[in-house]
Amino acid sequence: MKVFSEEISLEGHIIDSWTLPRAFDTIMDMGGSFDVQEIQVGRAKDEASFARLKVHAETEDKLESILSALQSFGAVLASREDVAYKPAPANGVLPPDFYSTTHLPTQVRLNGHWVDVTKTEMDLAIVVSPEHSEAHMVPFSGVRQGELVVVGHDGIRILPPQRPREREIFSFMGSNVSSEHPKRLVIDEIAKQMRAIRARGGKILIVAGPAIVHSGAGPYLAKLIRDGYVQVLFGGNAIATHDVESVLFGTSLGVALHNGKPVQGGHRNHMAAINTIRGVGSLREAVERGIIQEGIMYECIKNDVDLVLAGSVRDDGPMPDVITDTSKAQVRMRSALEGVEMALMIATMLHSIATGNMLKASVKVVAVDINPAVVTKLADRGTFQALGLVTDAELFVRELASALDAADEQESSEMFKLQKL
Amino acid sequence: MKVFSEEISLEGHIIDSWTLPRAFDTIMDMGGSFDVQEIQVGRAKDEASFARLKVHAETEDKLESILSALQSFGAVLASREDVAYKPAPANGVLPPDFYSTTHLPTQVRLNGHWVDVTKTEMDLAIVVSPEHSEAHMVPFSGVRQGELVVVGHDGIRILPPQRPREREIFSFMGSNVSSEHPKRLVIDEIAKQMRAIRARGGKILIVAGPAIVHSGAGPYLAKLIRDGYVQVLFGGNAIATHDVESVLFGTSLGVALHNGKPVQGGHRNHMAAINTIRGVGSLREAVERGIIQEGIMYECIKNDVDLVLAGSVRDDGPMPDVITDTSKAQVRMRSALEGVEMALMIATMLHSIATGNMLKASVKVVAVDINPAVVTKLADRGTFQALGLVTDAELFVRELASALDAADEQESSEMFKLQKL
Amino acid sequence: MKVFSEEISLEGHIIDSWTLPRAFDTIMDMGGSFDVQEIQVGRAKDEASFARLKVHAETEDKLESILSALQSFGAVLASREDVAYKPAPANGVLPPDFYSTTHLPTQVRLNGHWVDVTKTEMDLAIVVSPEHSEAHMVPFSGVRQGELVVVGHDGIRILPPQRPREREIFSFMGSNVSSEHPKRLVIDEIAKQMRAIRARGGKILIVAGPAIVHSGAGPYLAKLIRDGYVQVLFGGNAIATHDVESVLFGTSLGVALHNGKPVQGGHRNHMAAINTIRGVGSLREAVERGIIQEGIMYECIKNDVDLVLAGSVRDDGPMPDVITDTSKAQVRMRSALEGVEMALMIATMLHSIATGNMLKASVKVVAVDINPAVVTKLADRGTFQALGLVTDAELFVRELASALDAADEQESSEMFKLQKL
Amino acid sequence: MKVFSEEISLEGHIIDSWTLPRAFDTIMDMGGSFDVQEIQVGRAKDEASFARLKVHAETEDKLESILSALQSFGAVLASREDVAYKPAPANGVLPPDFYSTTHLPTQVRLNGHWVDVTKTEMDLAIVVSPEHSEAHMVPFSGVRQGELVVVGHDGIRILPPQRPREREIFSFMGSNVSSEHPKRLVIDEIAKQMRAIRARGGKILIVAGPAIVHSGAGPYLAKLIRDGYVQVLFGGNAIATHDVESVLFGTSLGVALHNGKPVQGGHRNHMAAINTIRGVGSLREAVERGIIQEGIMYECIKNDVDLVLAGSVRDDGPMPDVITDTSKAQVRMRSALEGVEMALMIATMLHSIATGNMLKASVKVVAVDINPAVVTKLADRGTFQALGLVTDAELFVRELASALDAADEQESSEMFKLQKL
Repeated sequence: MKVFSEEISLEGHIIDSWTLPRAFDTIMDMGGSFDVQEIQVGRAKDEASFARLKVHAETEDKLESILSALQSFGAVLASREDVAYKPAPANGVLPPDFYSTTHLPTQVRLNGHWVDVTKTEMDLAIVVSPEHSEAHMVPFSGVRQGELVVVGHDGIRILPPQRPREREIFSFMGSNVSSEHPKRLVIDEIAKQMRAIRARGGKILIVAGPAIVHSGAGPYLAKLIRDGYVQVLFGGNAIATHDVESVLFGTSLGVALHNGKPVQGGHRNHMAAINTIRGVGSLREAVERGIIQEGIMYECIKNDVDLVLAGSVRDDGPMPDVITDTSKAQVRMRSALEGVEMALMIATMLHSIATGNMLKASVKVVAVDINPAVVTKLADRGTFQALGLVTDAELFVRELASALDAADEQESSEMFKLQKL
Repeated sequence: MKVFSEEISLEGHIIDSWTLPRAFDTIMDMGGSFDVQEIQVGRAKDEASFARLKVHAETEDKLESILSALQSFGAVLASREDVAYKPAPANGVLPPDFYSTTHLPTQVRLNGHWVDVTKTEMDLAIVVSPEHSEAHMVPFSGVRQGELVVVGHDGIRILPPQRPREREIFSFMGSNVSSEHPKRLVIDEIAKQMRAIRARGGKILIVAGPAIVHSGAGPYLAKLIRDGYVQVLFGGNAIATHDVESVLFGTSLGVALHNGKPVQGGHRNHMAAINTIRGVGSLREAVERGIIQEGIMYECIKNDVDLVLAGSVRDDGPMPDVITDTSKAQVRMRSALEGVEMALMIATMLHSIATGNMLKASVKVVAVDINPAVVTKLADRGTFQALGLVTDAELFVRELASALDAADEQESSEMFKLQKL
Repeated sequence: MKVFSEEISLEGHIIDSWTLPRAFDTIMDMGGSFDVQEIQVGRAKDEASFARLKVHAETEDKLESILSALQSFGAVLASREDVAYKPAPANGVLPPDFYSTTHLPTQVRLNGHWVDVTKTEMDLAIVVSPEHSEAHMVPFSGVRQGELVVVGHDGIRILPPQRPREREIFSFMGSNVSSEHPKRLVIDEIAKQMRAIRARGGKILIVAGPAIVHSGAGPYLAKLIRDGYVQVLFGGNAIATHDVESVLFGTSLGVALHNGKPVQGGHRNHMAAINTIRGVGSLREAVERGIIQEGIMYECIKNDVDLVLAGSVRDDGPMPDVITDTSKAQVRMRSALEGVEMALMIATMLHSIATGNMLKASVKVVAVDINPAVVTKLADRGTFQALGLVTDAELFVRELASALDAADEQESSEMFKLQKL
Repeated sequence: MKVFSEEISLEGHIIDSWTLPRAFDTIMDMGGSFDVQEIQVGRAKDEASFARLKVHAETEDKLESILSALQSFGAVLASREDVAYKPAPANGVLPPDFYSTTHLPTQVRLNGHWVDVTKTEMDLAIVVSPEHSEAHMVPFSGVRQGELVVVGHDGIRILPPQRPREREIFSFMGSNVSSEHPKRLVIDEIAKQMRAIRARGGKILIVAGPAIVHSGAGPYLAKLIRDGYVQVLFGGNAIATHDVESVLFGTSLGVALHNGKPVQGGHRNHMAAINTIRGVGSLREAVERGIIQEGIMYECIKNDVDLVLAGSVRDDGPMPDVITDTSKAQVRMRSALEGVEMALMIATMLHSIATGNMLKASVKVVAVDINPAVVTKLADRGTFQALGLVTDAELFVRELASALDAADEQESSEMFKLQKL
């Protein structure tokens, strides 16, 4: 029987980051086999390891498939050829054998050198310009006819996530914190990291669902924004509408937020909130005219948060600030994501999945929802940087605000002491 | 203490449709009180009942609120004035005291006569043209400056749902069928009603989520369409993409549908499916060129189903047939909903909520999802026409197809017997 | 066609407590019909209503069924006969046509007088002693051969729940508070009621699941007990084991409670906790010897809480205090429930359902779980006294402790002010 | 700084079964460090691998903890001493430093030889008799004063699960099949394995929840039993009660199983079912007297299935066959589990967790529930032999019966063809 073979190599922390055993698994799962040509395991924890394997399969197709899978773990084909590419046949259309990206750092070999691919995101294509030794990822809609799109598997290298040596919250908890675990401590750790990012002028994104408002936790999120913990906020028509409704009428989903009692006119109130903002033309205008004087939207506008409200087909109204064209909303979101180091996704599946699709692997992700299935979907990113909490949005936002507050107070009392010395 | 009062009347099956006790509840919940001025209860089951109440509240605002709530149960203010209206101040903007609609049949009093309001939908405004004695509901975006928009509560009458006398599946099950109840029998009943609608040339809508394809139930839905049980189909980019992926590559979400084993390239396959259709320009073109020769999309196109694919911000691609502007998608959905008698919402929360918002109360709704919270949200429509099933999309679609098939076969064998006689 | 008929009457707040429309529904759902003989509706809110119906059915069996259903709404058969009874054929066995109870207040007619049935609980039998004009409910295992057991439907009267006039948390929220509603306000209200019960020397029951300990909320529950808010505590082997584990080793489910990090030996620790208590013979002995000096179990023993630990087939060990025979555990639970006014069921399905089965309708029930299906099951009691919260046990217990604390502090500062005057 | 060290070795398929990387992880997670002394990786897939590590920690306690964790992956302490043991201080009480077992195959070193420990189960103790070179696991209640109980960590060897080379359903699906995957194919595979077990006279256990009866799938489970696919059945009072109720009255939970309509007397019917069986004394007696002539209980008795009904504190009645003492029920379950090769746990959390605790790692487990959290809890066994399906009990049982039927028919038609030749 004919056998097709190819040699690959893997290096880095391939054992403790589980790369090597996953590679073995994958080859066998996909019906191939392998011989280990060479293996060196780092003896102490700061030494890297190295493995060279020969992979076999019965058909060329199957071998291709296996190699493609191994690439996503960081395997490099031993035959060191340049990356292959073909021109896009039309605007928004790729060559049939285009390479589909992962959210991991990726390099392509152009003119014998490895070049970093920028604008990392999952499920995109790679456009190269060989003369400038440049490569970047691009969604369908961003491809112009004739641009050179990477095809096949040669000359592509993925740098898989290395499990961090310093154990921190995102790796030691595993990716999922059920409702049965102590969340208070996890929230303290998240607060610590948020403070560190704020201190160094980094960017934090919050993807916010309307349950934050309904459950009465809106003022806590507003405070987070005011205190400088939010640089980018993604949401939909609902969070904006219910936030404005709560500010104008004191209600959310027909419930008075100050006493929890249902009031008549819940439905009308959210419609009236939308109508008010439509009447003045934008949320910013409403803030400037003093129509809304507090709340999440108010703080976003006052604190120059990059606010992207992406529309959906279930929206009433919508608010004039909502981007109803979802392709345009994606463009705005991609641009706002530049430089984001941490993303908190709270009680919204649609906008969180959209965001997750656009985030590169190195961004820290915290996914919070009361539905365990949603948390699993969002936190299962194949990285050591994602953390899912099965809990209440109300609890999470309030506890986070209180943890940040406590730390801020402690800091200022320490500063005060220092000043006195 | 000053008290504000107003007299209202209720008539119809106000006791067995629970209208009267709900009215009593509402008045008391909202802090009002009442006296029963007159009450007549129909003695036999086809006699209507009648009640006249005097409602009291401490402030005019509170009284207004209570009256507005009572209107949604069908209460008519005894003071029989005409409906009030004001011109819209700008395109897409309503007068501040606009009346916000329910999904129930509604009438307004114009020139002393009750006029039916058309295009019934929840959370819209009513535009009247007094000289033509005409009134219809309209969303924000459909309002033009100067059009006359109904304001306040006078001269508005809602016809609340009457609980059907003939007990049928939609009323006797209550609105929720948990996973612990026998679903086979419920599905048989739904099949019976679908056959009746098909027989009289009525319209059935299916709102379809991608889990139908992932779980391997795509061919069953395709068969339903082929057999004439679907006139309108709503979905998003995902159902179209995964349907085409399953037809072109035999996979869905990286799993081979013929043997359930994971294959490499799941992600790439869905991207390649999108790319293929983008390459030819539309699903219809792909069908006409013979690129896709079976599946849900194929059957929709071949059988002239009114197919509306509404985009969302989490879409890859998208497919060229997807309407990326959500406001435009709503317009297309509204138009496709004309004449729909029954809506089956299967394993998709976003598109189902969007659809539910646009459906008038009289449309029969079946909501199917494995998550009980989603089912409750969709089936809780305040009508006796909605039925929620907590179950597997795969089970539901397959069992429904088999129930319809069994009935079709029985019918044709009976027809055969008749012909032989 | 022959028709069987019987006259029944209903009285009380039969419209605003929804009794009459439910009766109408039931008759029609069960295939019967009716005529309204007489109806009087109370005009003002403190006037009772009255209705007399003639119910018809095609078979005697069907009529029997309908009458039995109507009885559970409080209908009284117009033919005012005494209750019927037969001797139990053997210990623990009932006559075949025994009457099965509801959890509502019930009376039987003995010697022409209505007698209250004591020891109210659902799904029991009624034993009467006509010569003493006494009647009480009894479970299967409590029936002795020859005791007189009520059979049939005559001479039985149920007093259905009246919807309270004063709107309070248990009625105005409906029975279900989803994770999207503001729970803080609801918790404040619960705290208020707990304080009132404590003030009048009433009894509060907590049914406690182990997630309270795992999530780090154990110390808050311990404080509640110490502060006199818990008179009865039901749980299983797990809450006791994990409480002792957390006290002895600082861990729960293999996670260190002080820093949230997993430690080795989680499994061993819970086994060692059990072994320690087995070694001294009982929790009380461990408290007395100073082996456990804090925690939930410690506070129960120190504060004379009536603690019932009911075993289950999944238990390790178990702890020596656990009652492994479930029938005996039921007897102990029944006896501890005497006088309980409020039951908080937190994060435990098995023990909560067991408790719910034993609670009469008038006990206030608060059911807390993160799974909406569990909350629905527990809070759906057909009374206006049950409240379900879909939330985190950790949140709930901590917020409740903080709400009670705040109120206690306020009170003592007011007392202090008074003393100073 | 002082450092405590110890040498350990690992061998077998330690890379592709992920043992080595997990060992690395664990050491670092627990605050230790290590040097790799020697490593040999099997080059072809049937060659075993070998590693020798030196593990370091700052305290002796920490080192102990780490070594204990590594043992559960199969690590052997290089210092090859015999196992240590101490006498049990009292009946049902262990020495304080007792060794707590895993559900994996375990050996202890007695008199210089490795001896298999029998009666494998998680969270038990090991009793040895050195003179007979014998060792077995035992629960708390099974330990007698003076028996020699293993303590500490020396001389204990665990054989960790080897990932099977032949990929089959239990390993290639991962442990969790969500509702979005095609379950039909998975069920076919389960059916194939059940047929193989039946063919070789092996034992299959079903742990059955009452939803099987409520959802109308009882007759399918009864057929499985009749066809020889069930040798052991575990359940509680509910499955027995509702099965008998459905046989005697055609109802379950107040719903008529033949038409899905609610009937009066659901509650009474289950009480009457219990009363009927209590009247004759046992299910077997009821079968022999012809009182029950079909159903799950009937088939169990007729087909000599080892039926264990374990009581719980929420039971009504209970049925006379229910073992109310949970410790005794555990003894019966342990004994019935001897020789079981496969366990199907369907829609019951309590009895499934109890069973899962008692199953050794090599038993194949299929866990079916509509709640994803329950499935995760049951299927997460750290083996490659557990499979969780998030789906409907009704669907699962019916599809399984139909898959088994189809295979049986095919077989008999093939046998028929063979006979004709």
